[in-house]
Amino acid sequence: MSFRDHIRSCNNYDPSRVVPLTAGSARIGLLRRDNAEALRRFSDVFAVEEHRVELVARGDVAAVSHTVDAVVDALVDEGRVPKWRNETFDAAPHWGAPPVFRLDRGAVPFFGTRAYGVHLNAYLRQGEALCLWVGRRSPAKQVAPNKLDNLVAGGIGNEHGVRDTLLKEGEEEASIPTSLMSQAISAGAVSYRMETPLGIRDDVLFVFDLEMPADFLPKNRDGELVHFELMPASAVLERIRATSDFKFNVNLVILDFAVRHGLLGPDDPEYLDVATGLHRPLD
Amino acid sequence: MSFRDHIRSCNNYDPSRVVPLTAGSARIGLLRRDNAEALRRFSDVFAVEEHRVELVARGDVAAVSHTVDAVVDALVDEGRVPKWRNETFDAAPHWGAPPVFRLDRGAVPFFGTRAYGVHLNAYLRQGEALCLWVGRRSPAKQVAPNKLDNLVAGGIGNEHGVRDTLLKEGEEEASIPTSLMSQAISAGAVSYRMETPLGIRDDVLFVFDLEMPADFLPKNRDGELVHFELMPASAVLERIRATSDFKFNVNLVILDFAVRHGLLGPDDPEYLDVATGLHRPLD
Repeated sequence: MSFRDHIRSCNNYDPSRVVPLTAGSARIGLLRRDNAEALRRFSDVFAVEEHRVELVARGDVAAVSHTVDAVVDALVDEGRVPKWRNETFDAAPHWGAPPVFRLDRGAVPFFGTRAYGVHLNAYLRQGEALCLWVGRRSPAKQVAPNKLDNLVAGGIGNEHGVRDTLLKEGEEEASIPTSLMSQAISAGAVSYRMETPLGIRDDVLFVFDLEMPADFLPKNRDGELVHFELMPASAVLERIRATSDFKFNVNLVILDFAVRHGLLGPDDPEYLDVATGLHRPLD
Repeated sequence: MSFRDHIRSCNNYDPSRVVPLTAGSARIGLLRRDNAEALRRFSDVFAVEEHRVELVARGDVAAVSHTVDAVVDALVDEGRVPKWRNETFDAAPHWGAPPVFRLDRGAVPFFGTRAYGVHLNAYLRQGEALCLWVGRRSPAKQVAPNKLDNLVAGGIGNEHGVRDTLLKEGEEEASIPTSLMSQAISAGAVSYRMETPLGIRDDVLFVFDLEMPADFLPKNRDGELVHFELMPASAVLERIRATSDFKFNVNLVILDFAVRHGLLGPDDPEYLDVATGLHRPLD
């Protein structure tokens, strides 16, 4: 493994394998060709053409969401989409735009709609050393079970804002009180586009840093993280360089932290590939 | 103006207007087609083909550099390359690779070889406010005269390292002592690819942050900066959003600083375009 390998695996997207999902003149998703084909029989909802799939269902957000839900139901029955997660994400042309429809989180990679999340680098200084709080994901997680994770991370569901999601996830995952989390500093965004067995992950992660009090001990409340450890950042970096122990996208978030805080510098032969590889320009 | 406009103008590169400059199997530059045509008469140095220009001069780095210099001489005479700057940059397939030849800095955009620089965000906290030291470039500068600039910035000439260039430029441009500059924190890289009247700028800027003592007053020694001002970061950002007072690439370096330090956050409608627009992946 290398840092570059982690970046490459999160950016293995191949445009030749995909057609856009459009709503009028706007692109709202990226359908792998096999997934596009699977939509052909829902011709009152999607028009599958050679170079794109057009959403043809009409109505307000609630009506279109309901229509798309019926398609997702059928795709779940066929095993093309994993089970419902009962958490919906907005499908929209870009961040901040009104949604065209809302989609169960489990179906997001199938349609390749852009998904947004928050990730928190929770750190503290012990003498000269900078340390990071690391969580281990539950074996029951649908995505990346047992992998190491940031102390706090979560998807931004519809009707939730960025800070709002960070506060909520911080309480659920690590019992971080609002008074502490409100000191988290917004520090950028990590973006990548990745093909998985389910389809396309077109992800944008809002990144925050929070310096933790020395006496803070995280406690999980929602069962999503099963263990916490405070690790020297240098050990975290070597673990990332050598293994796939961390969840795929968490490697990128921690590399971004390392670059911003001078833990990874110009002397490292991978420095420029890392510093310029974590922020796929949006389109 | 907007933040996006500054990012766009530094990334106005259009691959259809350019052919690669190759040395064997490696790309070492990007030649605009008119510049490629101008090399046709130097057929013992460059083979101009439809889809690429191949370096055919043979020999060690000194010999090839000498041969290319003679071409640059002729291009200066024709007015295609501005006057010699008597500072040479490496032409190489990637950072850290042995150079194929060395090129006068004035000819770098003509050949579109990648250029590397260092930029320093010199900041301090005044109460709640974060302030940035800003310099004004001399009216005599060849590039971007009179524009506002970082406190310290400079190109990395051949035989100079990253930290070494930062120390040297810090002394020349702002009289920053080595003891202070050694506290600068490496914080990433800004990269962009831009067409200018001269050719292609394929630039990578190593970015550093340095918290300045409250009583430090910069003094210029090399005549490149004629005035210094300590400005609240919020005022700097509004000036960047509204004007072109800062040098084209300095806008990007300061936006990167603003994103990393939470001065520009998810509430800003341009946040994601900025956070994902400052780090063109290298190829």
